[in-house]
Amino acid sequence: MKIRGLIYLFFILAFTANVSAQNTDEDAFFIKKIHDKALSDSKCYDWLYHMSENIGARLSGSDEYNIAADYTEAELRKLGVDKIWRQTTTVDYWDRGSGSSVRITDAMGHVLETKSLALGKSVGTPPGGITAEVIEVKSLDEVEQLGREKIEGKIVFYNRPLDPTHLNTFRAYGGAVDQRGNGASKASEYGALGVLVRSMTTRQDDVPHTGSLRYKEGVKPIPGIAISTNDANKLSTLLKDGEQPVMATMEADCNPAGERPSDNIIAEIKGSEFPDEIILVGGHLDSWDVGGGAHDDGAGCVHSMEVIHILKALNYQPKRTIRCVLFANEENGLAGGREYARISNENGEFHLAAIESDSGGFVPRGFTMDGTAAVLESYAKQINDWLPLLEPYGLWLKTGGSGADISPLKSQNGLLMGLRPDSQRYFDFHHTATDRIGAVNQRELELGAATMATMVFLIDKYGLKRP
Amino acid sequence: MKIRGLIYLFFILAFTANVSAQNTDEDAFFIKKIHDKALSDSKCYDWLYHMSENIGARLSGSDEYNIAADYTEAELRKLGVDKIWRQTTTVDYWDRGSGSSVRITDAMGHVLETKSLALGKSVGTPPGGITAEVIEVKSLDEVEQLGREKIEGKIVFYNRPLDPTHLNTFRAYGGAVDQRGNGASKASEYGALGVLVRSMTTRQDDVPHTGSLRYKEGVKPIPGIAISTNDANKLSTLLKDGEQPVMATMEADCNPAGERPSDNIIAEIKGSEFPDEIILVGGHLDSWDVGGGAHDDGAGCVHSMEVIHILKALNYQPKRTIRCVLFANEENGLAGGREYARISNENGEFHLAAIESDSGGFVPRGFTMDGTAAVLESYAKQINDWLPLLEPYGLWLKTGGSGADISPLKSQNGLLMGLRPDSQRYFDFHHTATDRIGAVNQRELELGAATMATMVFLIDKYGLKRP
Repeated sequence: MKIRGLIYLFFILAFTANVSAQNTDEDAFFIKKIHDKALSDSKCYDWLYHMSENIGARLSGSDEYNIAADYTEAELRKLGVDKIWRQTTTVDYWDRGSGSSVRITDAMGHVLETKSLALGKSVGTPPGGITAEVIEVKSLDEVEQLGREKIEGKIVFYNRPLDPTHLNTFRAYGGAVDQRGNGASKASEYGALGVLVRSMTTRQDDVPHTGSLRYKEGVKPIPGIAISTNDANKLSTLLKDGEQPVMATMEADCNPAGERPSDNIIAEIKGSEFPDEIILVGGHLDSWDVGGGAHDDGAGCVHSMEVIHILKALNYQPKRTIRCVLFANEENGLAGGREYARISNENGEFHLAAIESDSGGFVPRGFTMDGTAAVLESYAKQINDWLPLLEPYGLWLKTGGSGADISPLKSQNGLLMGLRPDSQRYFDFHHTATDRIGAVNQRELELGAATMATMVFLIDKYGLKRP
Repeated sequence: MKIRGLIYLFFILAFTANVSAQNTDEDAFFIKKIHDKALSDSKCYDWLYHMSENIGARLSGSDEYNIAADYTEAELRKLGVDKIWRQTTTVDYWDRGSGSSVRITDAMGHVLETKSLALGKSVGTPPGGITAEVIEVKSLDEVEQLGREKIEGKIVFYNRPLDPTHLNTFRAYGGAVDQRGNGASKASEYGALGVLVRSMTTRQDDVPHTGSLRYKEGVKPIPGIAISTNDANKLSTLLKDGEQPVMATMEADCNPAGERPSDNIIAEIKGSEFPDEIILVGGHLDSWDVGGGAHDDGAGCVHSMEVIHILKALNYQPKRTIRCVLFANEENGLAGGREYARISNENGEFHLAAIESDSGGFVPRGFTMDGTAAVLESYAKQINDWLPLLEPYGLWLKTGGSGADISPLKSQNGLLMGLRPDSQRYFDFHHTATDRIGAVNQRELELGAATMATMVFLIDKYGLKRP
């Protein structure tokens, strides 16, 4: 292939597209500076180390959450932002208590002590636990089909694995997580006493994964406990092997524990030309109550903080207002995201764009874009013109979701985006005791921050024409 | 705008012109089947587990190498290939002996015991080691500038870090590795007694990285030892702090240990229509003598073996001959790659394409293509027509290198390709005791194999028009 032909082609394309060649060179240069800064002199890894290892897991409403809120507020203040404030939300606290256990016994008297974690928001069991026969199902539909005759008085074991053939592991998760979210209430409707749920991961290992369940109103809440995939496989084998019933004793000391306050942390750099056009970067400061919440979602918090750090360090003067928001309570209620949007709407604010990072601190692969149909048609097209600036960093743009915390902002008719890191390892650590700093590669984390800063820079510099 | 972006755009246009929609659907379907198989029912992770954890490090000529050769040959045989054979090469063996130590002492009597590893192929020190003043340099040029007056009788400490701002860590490595490769001979030319080399990694940690040095003919060989980046930083600080000399005692028990035989392992499926057009997939079976050689290059071996497994499992009947080659001696001589090409040329073979995986078992990002100018113009253009089939898997195609083992095949005028996994984590583990199975994510490994199998399928199905 001839380079001359390519260049000729390029000029045709450049002409038809909206990108001016001169700006493109300048932009590419600044984007390189953003990346250089992130890879050589960033703070995000140290911040995440502190949050994950020194503060640790930080469920909304916990002491650790409040310590993390103080810490991130102080660190954001050091960056010299124009304004920093808090929004207090009210969250439904939940307490794991002294933990859980699931002991399986077959008719031969063999005992399997599983690795387990009670599901978030689950009610506890009575002391001494619940002992009952286990029945395995692959879906909520199967519970309905089996009906009360087969389900009543039993412990229902949801064991449909994540489909490993999805390239995007979030799809695999999305295809299985109804068991965790709604399995308890479905089983309770048919008289079950409790549910065991196969951990939501593509891995075969001994690590149990927690995460929220939701109780349906009017249905008796029964306890739900996750067991590791290795234990789920063993239990399933026991159930297949025997003619005799397999019994489980499940015990969990957890319980909902009343309302507590929990704060969103917000910092901003005021825009010089269009201060009323807000570009938000954010993640959620809360995590589940095990591990260190390193990937979920400490990474998203430090990504967002690092955007501020990089732009400040490069002495970038934004035309628009750049706002970093660390949301409370994504894991067990979304009170932070809802309250943020409520106040924003009340104040007549407009978020031109909001970018959430809540898919881990892995190597960035691109962004998904969300919004109303009119927004996607107008904004997304403009964003796509920047693709040649992103492609050298291996980044793509697709329509898709954005992030739970920013989703209530959709009605403002801005563009919502989600940073999409590579998803292969995310569910190795999601909602587990292993989601700690050792699971995070520093360069991958830094590149995520650089990718977000790049998008903020482009949106700030060029704006987005409203539909 | 970067040329890469241009090329990407160009290929999209080229695609609309050249690829028939019907084939594309069929091909996309088969490529999906390849990926499904890899992600749900592959053998590569188990193979790698065994090689890394049960067999372990396998320097060419070692017992472990021979065990790994037997193991992989047996596993390839189980796949039902048409032919399987060995090529015996002669390699210069090297023995680390009982290990190394580097002890730093400053004028105050403070002692720093470093984490060290002798460099591969290094001569040893006398028993009791070499004790001398340390002088830090940042480059081979600096040794020349300092001259014999400053260098003679000293231990030279090469301490230029990898440049973290390279997005591709192989570039960062390439910009620093001359210190490890040629630093000893350069220092010896000016009368140094030994060299310490900062480990070749972007990480700051306590893990020393080995790897080859090369002695220049006619220059006295002096010992070279790598120290961890944390220790390198500490040593550098000591050297900056004091007016007084900082002394090091470096001791290493290693030595070149004569010639030994070491075998390439080769398996093939004969092509039904064009058996003389060979499509090679390969990696190198040898590793350094520490860790488990999981990413370097166990991953490349099991990627290549998995290509055979997947195509067999999907009952794919290749038109061309698909050959899997596990090369000996990449790390310390390249005898395997050279001997393979020599015999291939002697037999008048033609490798239409050769694809090496020697950049780790991380998530695949694409392929680089190499060859003569005529080959690149003709073959690479055809390959690029397939980009729309690869893009859904997040893969790109670029010109660039291929792999050390297949590079001697360039004169056959086939297309050489390198699988390019994401590079961010590679130099965390490269040539270290930590390059073991725990550093490998199963899905990422499986996707690498699927990516190679995809490219083999496309080349086999469509062929490549010779320039």
